[in-house]
Amino acid sequence: AQVEAAPVDLSGYTRVKQDLVAPPFAPVHEQVATGGPKLIEINLETTERLMVVDEDTGASIWALTYNGSVPGPLIICHEGDMIELTLRNPVGSMMEHNIDFHASTGALGGGGLTHVFPGEETVLRWKATKPGCFTYHCAPGGAMIAYHVCHGMNGAVMVLPRDGLKDVDGNPLPYDSIAYIGEQDYYLPMDEFGDYKTYEAAGEDYADSLDAMRRLTPTHSVFNGAVGALTGENALTATVGDTVLMIHNQSNRDSRPHLIGGHGDYVWETSFSTPPLTGVETWFVRGGTAMASMYTFKQPGVYAYVNHNLIEAVLLGATAHFVVEGEWDNALMEQVVAPHSFEA
Amino acid sequence: AQVEAAPVDLSGYTRVKQDLVAPPFAPVHEQVATGGPKLIEINLETTERLMVVDEDTGASIWALTYNGSVPGPLIICHEGDMIELTLRNPVGSMMEHNIDFHASTGALGGGGLTHVFPGEETVLRWKATKPGCFTYHCAPGGAMIAYHVCHGMNGAVMVLPRDGLKDVDGNPLPYDSIAYIGEQDYYLPMDEFGDYKTYEAAGEDYADSLDAMRRLTPTHSVFNGAVGALTGENALTATVGDTVLMIHNQSNRDSRPHLIGGHGDYVWETSFSTPPLTGVETWFVRGGTAMASMYTFKQPGVYAYVNHNLIEAVLLGATAHFVVEGEWDNALMEQVVAPHSFEA
Amino acid sequence: AQVEAAPVDLSGYTRVKQDLVAPPFAPVHEQVATGGPKLIEINLETTERLMVVDEDTGASIWALTYNGSVPGPLIICHEGDMIELTLRNPVGSMMEHNIDFHASTGALGGGGLTHVFPGEETVLRWKATKPGCFTYHCAPGGAMIAYHVCHGMNGAVMVLPRDGLKDVDGNPLPYDSIAYIGEQDYYLPMDEFGDYKTYEAAGEDYADSLDAMRRLTPTHSVFNGAVGALTGENALTATVGDTVLMIHNQSNRDSRPHLIGGHGDYVWETSFSTPPLTGVETWFVRGGTAMASMYTFKQPGVYAYVNHNLIEAVLLGATAHFVVEGEWDNALMEQVVAPHSFEA
Ligand SMILES: [Cu+2]
Ligand SMILES: [Cu+2]
Ligand SMILES: [Cu+2]
Ligand SMILES: [Cu+2]
Ligand SMILES: [Cu+2]
Ligand SMILES: [Cu+2]
Ligand SMILES: [Mg+2]
Ligand SMILES: [Mg+2]
Ligand SMILES: [Mg+2]
Ligand SMILES: [Mg+2]
Ligand SMILES: [Mg+2]
Ligand SMILES: [Mg+2]
Ligand SMILES: [Mg+2]
Ligand SMILES: [Mg+2]
Ligand SMILES: [Mg+2]
Repeated sequence: AQVEAAPVDLSGYTRVKQDLVAPPFAPVHEQVATGGPKLIEINLETTERLMVVDEDTGASIWALTYNGSVPGPLIICHEGDMIELTLRNPVGSMMEHNIDFHASTGALGGGGLTHVFPGEETVLRWKATKPGCFTYHCAPGGAMIAYHVCHGMNGAVMVLPRDGLKDVDGNPLPYDSIAYIGEQDYYLPMDEFGDYKTYEAAGEDYADSLDAMRRLTPTHSVFNGAVGALTGENALTATVGDTVLMIHNQSNRDSRPHLIGGHGDYVWETSFSTPPLTGVETWFVRGGTAMASMYTFKQPGVYAYVNHNLIEAVLLGATAHFVVEGEWDNALMEQVVAPHSFEA
Repeated sequence: AQVEAAPVDLSGYTRVKQDLVAPPFAPVHEQVATGGPKLIEINLETTERLMVVDEDTGASIWALTYNGSVPGPLIICHEGDMIELTLRNPVGSMMEHNIDFHASTGALGGGGLTHVFPGEETVLRWKATKPGCFTYHCAPGGAMIAYHVCHGMNGAVMVLPRDGLKDVDGNPLPYDSIAYIGEQDYYLPMDEFGDYKTYEAAGEDYADSLDAMRRLTPTHSVFNGAVGALTGENALTATVGDTVLMIHNQSNRDSRPHLIGGHGDYVWETSFSTPPLTGVETWFVRGGTAMASMYTFKQPGVYAYVNHNLIEAVLLGATAHFVVEGEWDNALMEQVVAPHSFEA
Repeated sequence: AQVEAAPVDLSGYTRVKQDLVAPPFAPVHEQVATGGPKLIEINLETTERLMVVDEDTGASIWALTYNGSVPGPLIICHEGDMIELTLRNPVGSMMEHNIDFHASTGALGGGGLTHVFPGEETVLRWKATKPGCFTYHCAPGGAMIAYHVCHGMNGAVMVLPRDGLKDVDGNPLPYDSIAYIGEQDYYLPMDEFGDYKTYEAAGEDYADSLDAMRRLTPTHSVFNGAVGALTGENALTATVGDTVLMIHNQSNRDSRPHLIGGHGDYVWETSFSTPPLTGVETWFVRGGTAMASMYTFKQPGVYAYVNHNLIEAVLLGATAHFVVEGEWDNALMEQVVAPHSFEA
């Protein structure tokens, strides 16, 4: 059918290139679209690499990635734009890869048209018809779908409304920065002593991984690929008064993010075409979803952004930090009496 | 109290019979109700039968069913109608059964009034006061509740608004067909070699099943009773331009359906009295819920409808297929350059 | 920063004291606020105590509590009010505690300002700026966060809109009573024979507990601290025509409450600033959330309020009962023919 399909007229589109950047950062973009629809060229490479998941235990994985990061880079466009992806699988890869964009329509989200073996490339163009945040991921077929996704091969596209984000009454909701957070559930095989196994090359953990995955209980659930990837030196930063758009991608498993000490002023759990939830303590990420929450920081200090299954946050790794500068507001909170002995 | 309750005047109701059909199909019904309220007679039989869950492994279960299928048949009425159920437990059954309709009001959803032992029948009438999709299930009491539900004894009622489905602005949302999908989590006992155990009769797996269920990790999560029940020869079908209403029933465990290559144009996660979510990538089924999503197909090809915990989709069985005929639209997606070696 | 912050003018606030009560009850409160904003004094004590979780098995836990109950007491205020908490850790405690209020803003929800060692107390004041139900919990740092929360150290604050609860059209939604239900996931360590282990003092189960928690599968999920805490003698009560506001707190793990035989007429899953869902069969509690559902009872009898993962309801303990008095309405449901042998 596709061979005989009518050719498409692209004369109304302006061709531009989007330089993708590593998470937690966002590519240069407009919040409110200027001009007509764009045809946005992007490049993704299916990079297989050994990554340390937790320095404390030495747990590691032969990650399957887009452009080397877990999650893959954030792609941003507006409703009505087209994405033209060049997908390249390096010669040295061990495995076939492809890509399924939840934001797209047809052919298994593009998965059916983008299978690239090591040394191959392909070009796919698709139109962003629905506003929202959407996950993308590798889906080579059968059990390999879950295997690739659970090895890091996923990321997010944000399709903004042409006139930007709005509240329920149509008032604009601009943001000062984006924090792009991918939560990754890993199912790392252990040996009979409970130590994480190591492997020589990508794919060698396949049988062991399927056994571990079948139990549905991850050994790790981390932000941006590894325990501590967004804490300490790598913490996110903001200033009191900043409005941050937090984009959370989880391609496989439910999550429930909470910003400790803050809130979701506006939360889009499902799309940008349904008005945002407001004043939310803990929002929900349906497994196989990217979504967005927005917060304007009101106090300085360290905020932990966690999966509020606190076992997953503190034992499995799902914790990020925002370090926020600015002036404390005693009207919002005050330590009236510092901790002291009441026997004194 | 019930014995002394005032008799009800049914003179305003037209008595009709609804012939129930096996999933994934829907009974003959009106989308917009004509005439006054109906009193709809239905029949359900509590059939216990040995079912193969996965032909590849030979995994099987003594399923507990309504009318022989997992899920039980879809029942459709309009808000304000009454359902009059005759529930019959065959003479040869091993177990007591009953039925709890989430759509109904009082007496544990009817569960308290419908306990039938083998060889017994009863008649229950209830009024559909809330529009939405609702699960129904067996609930004989105590641990048997979970045991029966996890052995397939559940299904769905759809209570349509009298004037049919609407978008947030009140525009009608008619559909061309219904795909009725029940997701079933099974907890099949294994022997010490990891092989699925077999049993001689319904109920013999009771103690083993409770042990397996307590771990909260299903061995299977399948659509319409068995791995592959809605793929291959049994795939669902549609044509480009068709609007399909997908009804998802999961009586016990959360799920997150996604239509690979498509979307939820309209999604009612909780009821028909709250406006639908729009443009959704992956929706959420609260465990113990039936819900509906609506999509108009825009491209031909094979679409996989999955629980987007991809481990559950590809290892546990939660995958269905839609085979869609029609013309490809290059404006939505085009393979600009087919996969080829970039060294050539 | 906090030391140098401007002092706050509290002259517009009326200082009152809220006497907290044990769950499932609610403190005396106004639904619609009269007068100006209040500064509400409350007291919480971090009580460590040995609790029986299930009398049948003898399973027990050295619970970590606020004021001795699991969940901690319900706190109620209105948007714009301030809460002034005195938090006291008894001299005989084994552990450090603090408190993180999801309803508050800054300093890790107050967690950073309230660390009290045994024999210490502190006073924290914070402003309720967002209407909704919010969880609070202990969060002493690192793995201790999950350990304390999974030992019962959590509860809920309800921040009502000043003019009370409303439907989507702004009509008032008053209630006759509150049922405050905290769902607690416990991960009780077992010995090699599968028996629950016992410990001499709070904290002694720390290493064993972390091992059990890491599997993410609770041994118990109970309402108000123990199996059967809200059934039998302890069942909740109501009368036909009563409107009950059910507040569900789950600080760690997702849940999906269902009222068997009833519905959620109005359900606020995320906040009071987003209009309620209506006519819901089963609602969703994001782990790390308190939320509210409202129902007006229409029939007499026993209603079970359950986590509708029925395994968790019947095997893990997540069941409460409402015993409702009043007259049966045959127009809503009628047993037309009682169960009888169809061979006779
Ligand atoms: Cu791949
Ligand atoms: Cu997908
Ligand atoms: Cu049954
Ligand atoms: Cu139920
Ligand atoms: Cu504590
Ligand atoms: Cu918290
Ligand atoms: Mg570590
Ligand atoms: Mg999304
Ligand atoms: Mg392939
Ligand atoms: Mg198979
Ligand atoms: Mg429903
Ligand atoms: Mg019985
Ligand atoms: Mg017991
Ligand atoms: Mg809440
Ligand atoms: Mg500390």
